[in-house]
Amino acid sequence: MLKPLFTPDSVAIIGASRTPGKVGREILDNLIQGGFKGDIVPVNPAVDEIAGCRTYPDLKAYGRPVDLAIIAVPAAAAEAAVETALGCGARAVIVITAGFKELDAEGAERERALIRLCRQRNVRMLGPNCLGLINPHHRMNASFAKHMPEPGGISVVSQSGALCTAILDWAVSRRLGLASLVSMGNKADLNETDFLLEMAQDKNTRVIAGYLESIVSGDEFIKAAEQAASLKPVVFFKAGTTQAGGKAASSHTGSLAGADIAYGAAFKRAGVIRAETFEALFDYATAFSMQPLPAGRRVAIITNAGGPGIIAADAVENSAMEVGTLASSTAQALRNQLPAAASVGNPIDVLGDADPERYSAAVAAAQSDESIDAIIVILTPQAMTRPVETARAVASCAERGKPVLVSFMGGTDVSAGREALISAGIPDYPAPERAVAALRAMCDYADWLRRPPRIITRFPANRRRVERLINRHVKTGQVQMGEAAAKSVLAAYDFNVPAGRIATTADEAIEIAERIGFPVVMKIVSREVIHKSDVGGVKLNLDSPATVRDAFDLMMMRIRQRVPGATIEGAYIEQMCRKGREVILGMSRDPQFGPMLMFGLGGIFVEVMKDVTFHIAPITEQEALQMLKSTKSFALLRGVRGQSRVDISAIATALQRISQLANDFKQIQELDINPFIVGEIGTPAMAADARITLSPRTRQG
Amino acid sequence: MLKPLFTPDSVAIIGASRTPGKVGREILDNLIQGGFKGDIVPVNPAVDEIAGCRTYPDLKAYGRPVDLAIIAVPAAAAEAAVETALGCGARAVIVITAGFKELDAEGAERERALIRLCRQRNVRMLGPNCLGLINPHHRMNASFAKHMPEPGGISVVSQSGALCTAILDWAVSRRLGLASLVSMGNKADLNETDFLLEMAQDKNTRVIAGYLESIVSGDEFIKAAEQAASLKPVVFFKAGTTQAGGKAASSHTGSLAGADIAYGAAFKRAGVIRAETFEALFDYATAFSMQPLPAGRRVAIITNAGGPGIIAADAVENSAMEVGTLASSTAQALRNQLPAAASVGNPIDVLGDADPERYSAAVAAAQSDESIDAIIVILTPQAMTRPVETARAVASCAERGKPVLVSFMGGTDVSAGREALISAGIPDYPAPERAVAALRAMCDYADWLRRPPRIITRFPANRRRVERLINRHVKTGQVQMGEAAAKSVLAAYDFNVPAGRIATTADEAIEIAERIGFPVVMKIVSREVIHKSDVGGVKLNLDSPATVRDAFDLMMMRIRQRVPGATIEGAYIEQMCRKGREVILGMSRDPQFGPMLMFGLGGIFVEVMKDVTFHIAPITEQEALQMLKSTKSFALLRGVRGQSRVDISAIATALQRISQLANDFKQIQELDINPFIVGEIGTPAMAADARITLSPRTRQG
Repeated sequence: MLKPLFTPDSVAIIGASRTPGKVGREILDNLIQGGFKGDIVPVNPAVDEIAGCRTYPDLKAYGRPVDLAIIAVPAAAAEAAVETALGCGARAVIVITAGFKELDAEGAERERALIRLCRQRNVRMLGPNCLGLINPHHRMNASFAKHMPEPGGISVVSQSGALCTAILDWAVSRRLGLASLVSMGNKADLNETDFLLEMAQDKNTRVIAGYLESIVSGDEFIKAAEQAASLKPVVFFKAGTTQAGGKAASSHTGSLAGADIAYGAAFKRAGVIRAETFEALFDYATAFSMQPLPAGRRVAIITNAGGPGIIAADAVENSAMEVGTLASSTAQALRNQLPAAASVGNPIDVLGDADPERYSAAVAAAQSDESIDAIIVILTPQAMTRPVETARAVASCAERGKPVLVSFMGGTDVSAGREALISAGIPDYPAPERAVAALRAMCDYADWLRRPPRIITRFPANRRRVERLINRHVKTGQVQMGEAAAKSVLAAYDFNVPAGRIATTADEAIEIAERIGFPVVMKIVSREVIHKSDVGGVKLNLDSPATVRDAFDLMMMRIRQRVPGATIEGAYIEQMCRKGREVILGMSRDPQFGPMLMFGLGGIFVEVMKDVTFHIAPITEQEALQMLKSTKSFALLRGVRGQSRVDISAIATALQRISQLANDFKQIQELDINPFIVGEIGTPAMAADARITLSPRTRQG
Repeated sequence: MLKPLFTPDSVAIIGASRTPGKVGREILDNLIQGGFKGDIVPVNPAVDEIAGCRTYPDLKAYGRPVDLAIIAVPAAAAEAAVETALGCGARAVIVITAGFKELDAEGAERERALIRLCRQRNVRMLGPNCLGLINPHHRMNASFAKHMPEPGGISVVSQSGALCTAILDWAVSRRLGLASLVSMGNKADLNETDFLLEMAQDKNTRVIAGYLESIVSGDEFIKAAEQAASLKPVVFFKAGTTQAGGKAASSHTGSLAGADIAYGAAFKRAGVIRAETFEALFDYATAFSMQPLPAGRRVAIITNAGGPGIIAADAVENSAMEVGTLASSTAQALRNQLPAAASVGNPIDVLGDADPERYSAAVAAAQSDESIDAIIVILTPQAMTRPVETARAVASCAERGKPVLVSFMGGTDVSAGREALISAGIPDYPAPERAVAALRAMCDYADWLRRPPRIITRFPANRRRVERLINRHVKTGQVQMGEAAAKSVLAAYDFNVPAGRIATTADEAIEIAERIGFPVVMKIVSREVIHKSDVGGVKLNLDSPATVRDAFDLMMMRIRQRVPGATIEGAYIEQMCRKGREVILGMSRDPQFGPMLMFGLGGIFVEVMKDVTFHIAPITEQEALQMLKSTKSFALLRGVRGQSRVDISAIATALQRISQLANDFKQIQELDINPFIVGEIGTPAMAADARITLSPRTRQG
């Protein structure tokens, strides 16, 4: 789809320059020196020739349409340049020029003008304010970064041009091959979603690595990323994780859900592997681009020194993987091939004087051992060590189905060995922990690929009733739905809620209580009263007409005293809930990724221990169960120390129903069910208290 | 003290060899090529000369005592070689030879023989089974590792010889200077404690970096490490963290305390900075060796690109540091020196085309800003970037009191700049996160140096009574102290325990209850009954003589039915405790580091959430309070959501008393007070249940 951008036959540089150091000159030089095979069309009205290339006064003079036009003129001239290029039939545009949205309002207006031009002609634009694009397989360096990496399997997409230069410099120094490198700049038109889809289809790309600071559309990102991740690994590093804060939230769920949690949940859903550090981004991408995925988490460690073997074993166990137990036949075979002092356990210690043959024997043995899924090889440069030959020996035993990741530790002594590894397609890391972390990323991705199909259950629900309730609030400009209305919404989605009604007089309260059956709960209903129990607005366990009357009269008096001027609608009389385990269920709508579901155990577990999990809606039953299991306090639901197991599937069903409700009604901004009381299997779970916040925008709708 | 080892005037190589590749030849070559200025005395009975050095048939033939004798003969001949060397007056010995304790029982016996010889002569020995020792400041490479690093400020002590070779190779490649490097081998005589003390005194050593798999003596280690850390930073990496497991424990405290937790607590106490990864060990050591400590945690970030600035800011905030707010005068000054488009907030963005002058202006401004404690500088290799000159410009603004840590990102383009940084004494890291992690280690160490003096409070206690109680158990071979005895021990250390006595008949139970006052608790007393409540061995809230009689008779019947054959000593009649917050206090004696104190909130907080902290005894009041504060659930003690604040200092005092008890009685192996009930300030806290496990060894004592 983006063929004219990634593999053009002809490239024009609008604003080509004779002056070395100028961007318009750098790009031209890079295209020539990179070995671009197609037509190079420098455009500059003032000169005839630059760097041996015939130069055109304008694009029309070239006489044919170009596939790709690169704009490197000043910002004020960019609009005209783009217009001319499109008029001459350019099929894709890169605007290198800066001075747009990133600068000021005027720049933003100039940027919108560029977008309009491109949209009119249905031509895609990269930039503005970017470094450009490099496609080593097409021998095209259409950027002002001077390095041309070797062709390889990693495609890089970055929101920072400066990081592109650092990545290129690093990749070239390590001779690590790239499939493509894209600096997205301001993302006025093309953004991460487009490149995910494009790189997913690109046959040279084995892994997509990305640096993001923001994303343009959460929904489209998740769709594109999931589609890409189904075809090949996607690794992203997201910067700006601590800048969340500041968001005003009226629910527990809202106050606990930050942008970083939303990105984490979105990446997880879409199968995107998240790199925790910038180094990890390329540590992981290198492994993915070079090695097959592991079938499981049982790791063999091969080392010529005890210490690093222990370091690797620690890292494996701390990374939710397992130092595998070798089959006895493997140990026996190694016994015959290695010296008597060698350890044929796991780690396999081939000893300090290990020659390449010992390494290949150990790697071959691990490859054929059915109780091993992946292999970590460690080398320290000792007196007899031959790093280059060892690299080749290890490489000769790779490509047998299991991933092999290597750590050659040291400096100059092992650098030739490292190069031999990289050129043989074996990822190498300066320390064992980094090899193990990359392997863990591979395991996580392999797990995601093996996930069961996502089937969203649709529950019967009374949508019309919810619509009416929401509309009533919208009409009166109420953003907060009180307990009674929120419970009506939940009841329409088949939640059990305690029977109850609003009473405006003590007599009415008694009448309702008698209909429900004693004991009952009484709660104040007033828009002005948020924390009801703090002002005497909640009475539990009222077990007779007399106690109901006393409570009603006292509550009316207290609220008038303590919240002067509050509009009191009445008192909500409600059935007492049975005791059970209290959990909190919630939903907070992330501006990028939409409804995020939350689960946690009630009270202190949420408020003090922050032991909660999030998931992006819609959610499957299996994902809901996984949410529960990923809290520390899950053991309490399963039943520990004499406490009984609660109806876990009732919680999972409730999360699915909230997911459906949130998808049905975009107006619902936040929702808390706190507590949701769940008992033993067979007893009905109950939404004992609830609150819904509507989006302020719905008032205008 | 270890002068003949680190700075000898003469070195003999016993087992010097003509054959290249042999250890006895490698060491000789390394001594010569390293430029050792003293006498080199190769000993080999078969030849006259090796590598141009006059060779002696035996050490006697040299005619004078040597300072240092290096033994490189086969293991079977090592004892005789050491004996001869000592006989000739050698003042220190390095045994390179392997084949001792690490091999088999016979080897262990040979190793003990070496130790005996050295102890008789009062001569210290390094090894056996080690790589040797390097002192670049003395131009001495007394090892078989071929690299000689430049003289510098980092002293390395390692339990793995192979890691020494990797470290050396890496240090030489990076031109990073070392003060010394010691491969400890089997640590038969000299171990980590000795080297900590020695390196602490060494004037060339600015930081001590260590790789440990085990330590010889926990007590001595803590003392030596604390002494060393008071003088200079000590950074250790401990491998084998996941190998804890397997220890049988009879208490909560014991089952939660593992070897790794003990190492963590010991390092923390001693002021040792723990490196979490092998790379971190040198990342931190490099920073400590080159830069001053920060006075606080407010960081300025200077960058020529937005992305890496965000990455650094994220890392700072995630590392318990703060992206500082620049003084307005600083911002103003920068405004005048930097281009208009530059950001003079924090991160300070000097823009992609930044020249060295912009960097030095920004670093100088941050140096003189009183609201900044430390400076992180980031460079990406863009078109106009001059890394070497920028390195020099940054270096010219260092050494003004605040630490400056740098990340030059990329590969070949920045490698000369990196070398310029290192040679100017500015630590450089391949990614911003690693610079930030090193800075955090510096902050943590600076905090430790500023800690208040440790004053251990000594509480009055009835030691004789505890002695009698323990002896009684020891005599009868009882390892477990039951509830009554354990509470007597606690009462002797001034804990409040509920009043109570053992009754053997129902009448006696009623009599005791009447003396204590109703209501009372009744608990079975039987060595065979461990989980009392599971078998009907606990009755609460008995409020009259009749209920006491019924409970007694029923309990006796139930226990006989449910635990047939149990020896029932009677029933413990005890005052009911008031309600309050339940916490668990404990002590578990670590084999290396002695008594480890534990604190956690009761029940699920310990059992499900594992929200506990440990501290090595003895403990100060301040440390005890810090223990409480470092749990997540501390908020519950301080009072949240309508719950009242409890008497926190009562818990701190209880921990100090346990600390004292554990130090007074080494026979106490484990102790649990569960629950320790603490109420509001002013109400007495109570040890409601307790259990003590004695060391099995005390039976023999």
